[in-house]
Amino acid sequence: MVDFSFTEEQELFRSSLREWLEKNLPLEKVRENDEKERLPRELIKGIADLGLLCMTLPEEHGGVGADWVTTTIAAEELGYADISIALPVFFLVEASWGYVVDRYCTERVRDECLRKAARGDAFIGIGVTEPGGGSDVAGFQTTLKRTEGGWIVNGEKTYISGTEECKELGGGFFCVGYHDRSQLHRGMTAFYLPLDAEGVEVTKRYDDMGRMAISTGGFKMTDVFIPDEYQLGETGWGFYLTMEGFDAARLLVSASCVGAAQRAIELGVEYIKERKAFEQPLARFQGIQFELADMVAELEAVRSLIYRAAWMMNKKYEKAEPGKMPDRRLSLECCKYISMCKLMAPRLAYDIFTKVMLWFGAYGYTKECPLEMGLRGVMSYYIGAEGATNIQRVIIARETLGREYTRAR
Amino acid sequence: MVDFSFTEEQELFRSSLREWLEKNLPLEKVRENDEKERLPRELIKGIADLGLLCMTLPEEHGGVGADWVTTTIAAEELGYADISIALPVFFLVEASWGYVVDRYCTERVRDECLRKAARGDAFIGIGVTEPGGGSDVAGFQTTLKRTEGGWIVNGEKTYISGTEECKELGGGFFCVGYHDRSQLHRGMTAFYLPLDAEGVEVTKRYDDMGRMAISTGGFKMTDVFIPDEYQLGETGWGFYLTMEGFDAARLLVSASCVGAAQRAIELGVEYIKERKAFEQPLARFQGIQFELADMVAELEAVRSLIYRAAWMMNKKYEKAEPGKMPDRRLSLECCKYISMCKLMAPRLAYDIFTKVMLWFGAYGYTKECPLEMGLRGVMSYYIGAEGATNIQRVIIARETLGREYTRAR
Amino acid sequence: MVDFSFTEEQELFRSSLREWLEKNLPLEKVRENDEKERLPRELIKGIADLGLLCMTLPEEHGGVGADWVTTTIAAEELGYADISIALPVFFLVEASWGYVVDRYCTERVRDECLRKAARGDAFIGIGVTEPGGGSDVAGFQTTLKRTEGGWIVNGEKTYISGTEECKELGGGFFCVGYHDRSQLHRGMTAFYLPLDAEGVEVTKRYDDMGRMAISTGGFKMTDVFIPDEYQLGETGWGFYLTMEGFDAARLLVSASCVGAAQRAIELGVEYIKERKAFEQPLARFQGIQFELADMVAELEAVRSLIYRAAWMMNKKYEKAEPGKMPDRRLSLECCKYISMCKLMAPRLAYDIFTKVMLWFGAYGYTKECPLEMGLRGVMSYYIGAEGATNIQRVIIARETLGREYTRAR
Amino acid sequence: MVDFSFTEEQELFRSSLREWLEKNLPLEKVRENDEKERLPRELIKGIADLGLLCMTLPEEHGGVGADWVTTTIAAEELGYADISIALPVFFLVEASWGYVVDRYCTERVRDECLRKAARGDAFIGIGVTEPGGGSDVAGFQTTLKRTEGGWIVNGEKTYISGTEECKELGGGFFCVGYHDRSQLHRGMTAFYLPLDAEGVEVTKRYDDMGRMAISTGGFKMTDVFIPDEYQLGETGWGFYLTMEGFDAARLLVSASCVGAAQRAIELGVEYIKERKAFEQPLARFQGIQFELADMVAELEAVRSLIYRAAWMMNKKYEKAEPGKMPDRRLSLECCKYISMCKLMAPRLAYDIFTKVMLWFGAYGYTKECPLEMGLRGVMSYYIGAEGATNIQRVIIARETLGREYTRAR
Repeated sequence: MVDFSFTEEQELFRSSLREWLEKNLPLEKVRENDEKERLPRELIKGIADLGLLCMTLPEEHGGVGADWVTTTIAAEELGYADISIALPVFFLVEASWGYVVDRYCTERVRDECLRKAARGDAFIGIGVTEPGGGSDVAGFQTTLKRTEGGWIVNGEKTYISGTEECKELGGGFFCVGYHDRSQLHRGMTAFYLPLDAEGVEVTKRYDDMGRMAISTGGFKMTDVFIPDEYQLGETGWGFYLTMEGFDAARLLVSASCVGAAQRAIELGVEYIKERKAFEQPLARFQGIQFELADMVAELEAVRSLIYRAAWMMNKKYEKAEPGKMPDRRLSLECCKYISMCKLMAPRLAYDIFTKVMLWFGAYGYTKECPLEMGLRGVMSYYIGAEGATNIQRVIIARETLGREYTRAR
Repeated sequence: MVDFSFTEEQELFRSSLREWLEKNLPLEKVRENDEKERLPRELIKGIADLGLLCMTLPEEHGGVGADWVTTTIAAEELGYADISIALPVFFLVEASWGYVVDRYCTERVRDECLRKAARGDAFIGIGVTEPGGGSDVAGFQTTLKRTEGGWIVNGEKTYISGTEECKELGGGFFCVGYHDRSQLHRGMTAFYLPLDAEGVEVTKRYDDMGRMAISTGGFKMTDVFIPDEYQLGETGWGFYLTMEGFDAARLLVSASCVGAAQRAIELGVEYIKERKAFEQPLARFQGIQFELADMVAELEAVRSLIYRAAWMMNKKYEKAEPGKMPDRRLSLECCKYISMCKLMAPRLAYDIFTKVMLWFGAYGYTKECPLEMGLRGVMSYYIGAEGATNIQRVIIARETLGREYTRAR
Repeated sequence: MVDFSFTEEQELFRSSLREWLEKNLPLEKVRENDEKERLPRELIKGIADLGLLCMTLPEEHGGVGADWVTTTIAAEELGYADISIALPVFFLVEASWGYVVDRYCTERVRDECLRKAARGDAFIGIGVTEPGGGSDVAGFQTTLKRTEGGWIVNGEKTYISGTEECKELGGGFFCVGYHDRSQLHRGMTAFYLPLDAEGVEVTKRYDDMGRMAISTGGFKMTDVFIPDEYQLGETGWGFYLTMEGFDAARLLVSASCVGAAQRAIELGVEYIKERKAFEQPLARFQGIQFELADMVAELEAVRSLIYRAAWMMNKKYEKAEPGKMPDRRLSLECCKYISMCKLMAPRLAYDIFTKVMLWFGAYGYTKECPLEMGLRGVMSYYIGAEGATNIQRVIIARETLGREYTRAR
Repeated sequence: MVDFSFTEEQELFRSSLREWLEKNLPLEKVRENDEKERLPRELIKGIADLGLLCMTLPEEHGGVGADWVTTTIAAEELGYADISIALPVFFLVEASWGYVVDRYCTERVRDECLRKAARGDAFIGIGVTEPGGGSDVAGFQTTLKRTEGGWIVNGEKTYISGTEECKELGGGFFCVGYHDRSQLHRGMTAFYLPLDAEGVEVTKRYDDMGRMAISTGGFKMTDVFIPDEYQLGETGWGFYLTMEGFDAARLLVSASCVGAAQRAIELGVEYIKERKAFEQPLARFQGIQFELADMVAELEAVRSLIYRAAWMMNKKYEKAEPGKMPDRRLSLECCKYISMCKLMAPRLAYDIFTKVMLWFGAYGYTKECPLEMGLRGVMSYYIGAEGATNIQRVIIARETLGREYTRAR
């Protein structure tokens, strides 16, 4: 039955998380992190103590068994607090990719990485993008060659969030490569890559436009031995697990963008009520009111869609056994709706930051005002982290028209 | 708990309604109605037999006690079937304004109008707009003067949907006027006006741009005697009941627009799969695919918001006793969210009809293609039936900023 | 040297044309034509007497040798007067396609058609679209088979403006078909088709959404004999002459749309200054002012581009000898800029009509208000008469990226 | 007569300027300046040697007597080269405000500042914004008190471009304040403020979001003595001269934004031709082509409007004697059209940078790609340097509707 209320527990979770973040991560602190280009260790520990890291994992694997609506609330609140999007990236990568790793991994991976990550003592990330690759997952060059008890992996991954954090904390990445290129999508296999594995070389940290407090880097894999215990799911499932992870991540990305946009609006509203021009508060000018009304409405629409998609994720995973891929029909439906969220939420957040900044005028252009940091931050998801805008369109068109109309090759 | 599933009953209701409409109101029939500028009597009887007319009223008053989610489903399906929006207008005016009339009226009004309207044997509509008035309800000129056992009403109402239908079927309108202008909003009183009351003169039928099958007209009231039994709610409640009716109507308007837009997309998808240019179906051109993806996503977001608002309406009315105004806080929240729906849904539907028409080229410009009829139809709600676009913005801004920033006077 | 002034003659031409149209074609008359679905004969005669018909042709061929800036002025003023776009269609088809016919035709075609058309005693139109064809000119099915002294033509043309007018007045159409499909673009040949030629059957008049006062129809050609004297240009030039005609027509289309949009704004401004809501003229509400400012600015930008393109057309034809194709580089540059005009002007006009209509509310939805007629009219060019919106994009992308990136086949 | 060609001299000027900038200010150098937050002295000297600084001034005052079309070309080319917008700011502030200062100043100001500024040995800027003021010029607090031989000035100016450069090079600012608040607009007087005058304290340099290579700061004036020789124009002309300067600056701002956007498109086109996804260059995907076509078209439209406005500026100043205000009608027309340019050009440039960045994906988000620097740069003009977006709308609405509808007070 259609219901848009959160449970009492979820409401409590949201309000106590907001309170904690107000105290521990006010905007001045976000700015400081952005400038120091680092998430303080105690902040990560703090959200770990709150049970946020890897919260989607079952308790016996280190998480709190959070459902997707609750996890979406967390992503939204983290975006609301850290509009630079750095902490949201750290959080959501683990909550989504950590979840997929956990669904398909061995107890060894859990011990070596996931349980630690859930305590803030390791990092579990996503390493799929390749130098020539971008959104074209099937065009990747990383190869797995069968050897005794495992695989020999060669390849390079780039534009990977959290490489420096992973170096510091330990942990590794969900990775994917071809074990048999001739089988196309079915020729890819996923595996867990500890960043300190022999043959792994971490490449430079990129100097990004925004979300400075979390690193973006890459790594080269030269004859890296991946024991079978690090393989994720069955041989040939790599492409599908990647898509599964993207869906989870994109849902949370969307929620963080909505949270950040909500904060932008609130900062804007506060400002226009105080700032005067022509002897009136800006808030009394209809030109600004109408712009505000449009953005509030659009944000609520997208937010409604996001929680609807979170509910679909719950349904998808309800009956999905660990180690087995979830029902294909539910997966594709999730994928379609989550692609809509990812298509709209970062774009809308970027648009809202832009428009609200304009209300602030010259002050909004300075780093004394937090908004420019938010604009630079949400741009990372608009430009394509966890999947380019156009890829979302391709998915939606494919699911609307049928695959035969959208084959790129 | 967040849930986006419809109940089994609601699913069944939707599918059987769609089936009935496919058979009884195919697009050729919609075109015929549009050309003849008339909704056939048997069509109205047909949806009455299905229990759609005044479906929000309790069974003992002639309705089926439908909740707002179910009623929203009906509005959506009627928009899907009749993209010219004529039948949706007929339906939703009764389901919303009929509901408000019923909440505040005497048994006499129910007998004389509502129970008949529910059977398709009368019409209950909304008559608030005035020649000089438009969206400025407080600027209305209609006056009520106290007399023995009732009121003497003078004034004129215009751009009223369904005047001809009401003349033919019998019934009347929810009306409002000032009993005491000095009290501003609190000086307005609502009443039921039978269209055949003495002193009522129905003015000309307008030649509209679209939704030709339902009439738009007006009426003049000259010394019309309104007995106390026709008064709706208490003296001084007129403004608030009007707002209550608008919220109900705007929710359903939004749903009908979404239904019509959904149909436009489906008609477009069907066409681009078949139509070829440059030796390929149009559906294979990415330029069109991306446009499609954007509109599908935006429509789903707005649809999600609409059902969320329908759920809010259920909550608002759950505890509201008949004859009493619902909780003010819940009312204002409903109002805010429904204004968002009304701001976005007709605009989006208009935009989707426009863009889909372009896919059809010259054929889309002819009356052989149903789309132009849909474009003209949804324009009626975009331009402002049941409340101008800018009024929705004013409401959203007011509820976001606070009343002190948006006072127009 | 950059100069945006019109010559004194052009200024005088514009003001006297506007004056004439104010007197002879007020909006009530436009509405009447739209309802009667006919351009009165005396109106056509009237603009013929003003020298407007086929005005681009040299005097010795019946025209007034008007340059393209002056002709653009005429198109703009006609759009300003007849926002339903019917008279602009009649005018611009002749000024553009008549011009191309004249450049490549024999004296016989001039005598039989062009000189008469310039007096309003015949019609010269464009007949290229085919039932399966739309924008894909190269996919056309009409064939020319060589015979003694001419060609035997078979094929069908559809969505042709002015078929009824041509039946009534006499005259014919610029047509094109394949004489040798194997040569692709170079296998097409253009010819003048008198509508009363043996073997030509005029098909039904379409019931269009708008611009009702000018007909849209089609014709079938069954073994029609086209003497060599009716051939336009050399064998194999058909595709290129078609493109030449499109460029001329699209320039004027754009100007007419800008003229109509200008009128919409002026009608809107007049209305919002008078109409009050909340005790103030609508014009004092900033929400409306800002919308107005945006549309005024966008319209001026597009208008500037259009006159720039008109100036380019003058340059292109300055040195082009009759019967020879103009310089290819200049042609492609014209084509690129005119495609920009055609991409933007109808879309902007449609958008302006839509937004201005919203200011009028319910009154704007009736046929008492002229705007809905304008909206329906400009839609004909937005949807694609004289070339679909997407085709303009393809051309611009092609000229920006290079042909190798935009080949559709 | 409508003409869109540049003179041979202008064409040569453009091409030699572009060549010089390619050599002396490649994008790597722009990035370096952005990072070092400084325009190298030799760069300023370089463009001074080219005759660009204060180029609008007559030769006898140090300039080259450049007309406004030529100056617009310079602004466009500088934006094309320095997409971070830092050098354009330096250039255009001098070409516009230096021009207005020169029109109304004494020979002493020319000697002390303008002639030096033209050689790159001083800076002449604009200092009107005040801490509480923003776009509301009339709300300014700076006061002039009459004293023997001059004025005593008190006040504070903020968000002033070039304070650090002015400290280093010498020079000063066009300033304005009230000599008589009771006279409103007519109570303001303009003056030249040497930054090293006694009583002037330069306040902190802001840390801006972008255009890092030019400083933004402010200054406090405490009992600063301004001799009559520093007064600009007559007493009471301050508001009007400010508006005159804004018009000149906004024209050049618009041109620089168009130049930067042009560069963004070219960088994007180069990239999408090379970068492959799904085995094809991105440039072959229609989704990207259509986006490109739209932006190319919109940019050309705005560019056309800008050169039209430049031509209007020429007309306005043609007959305006030095020391006298130009014709009011021409001034208002210039103002209207230039406001359109300023409304559209920075917004469009921002939009183009945003969209082109998306083509680049993750790489576009790094500082290895120049685009993010351009986005941050054009934002300075979108957010409001030289006049907020909404102020442009107010001006356009005022000139369209009449002053009586737009009075803010």
